[in-house]
Amino acid sequence: MAKLLVLYKTPTDASAFDAYYTETHIPLAKAIPGLRSYEVSRGAVASPAGESGVHLVAILTFDSLSDLEAGLGSPQGQAAAGDLPKFATGGAELLMFETQDA
Amino acid sequence: MAKLLVLYKTPTDASAFDAYYTETHIPLAKAIPGLRSYEVSRGAVASPAGESGVHLVAILTFDSLSDLEAGLGSPQGQAAAGDLPKFATGGAELLMFETQDA
Repeated sequence: MAKLLVLYKTPTDASAFDAYYTETHIPLAKAIPGLRSYEVSRGAVASPAGESGVHLVAILTFDSLSDLEAGLGSPQGQAAAGDLPKFATGGAELLMFETQDA
Repeated sequence: MAKLLVLYKTPTDASAFDAYYTETHIPLAKAIPGLRSYEVSRGAVASPAGESGVHLVAILTFDSLSDLEAGLGSPQGQAAAGDLPKFATGGAELLMFETQDA
């Protein structure tokens, strides 16, 4: 399997972020070809020290890294990526990797 | 469900990190009560810009945030957390959150 992690840093307006993410971004991301599962954080993203600076975490799972790359390179993937600047006012860190069970 | 993400930043000695993580840290973390699944990245952790600065990602899944917190607070959880300074020479970012399907 392979995963795309998206760590959205605290936005300038959390309510506006949440509304846009749910209503507009999720439907765009769900359309990415090859997407097997799509989980998002609910509520606070905590760190051991307290505030994490991360507002929302998205975990998108694909069958393989090549499927992930093909998905992001597709028109639907490009549309979802191109949507980020419209709401991710705190910035976003994207991480892509293959996974295995520990 | 709830997840603990651990983002290990690039260590000073990647080979030493990998050996210690596999041989010592994984067995400690697997002993945490309530742990339902434990996935780790395999190979490079990429970002769209190229180098991500992250060497390894661990995704630990629990049934709930309270199970996650109880697991980390247990003797086994404290042992695993206390092990981090022994090998995470680049530092590590820990994020804890509930998840839902998008």
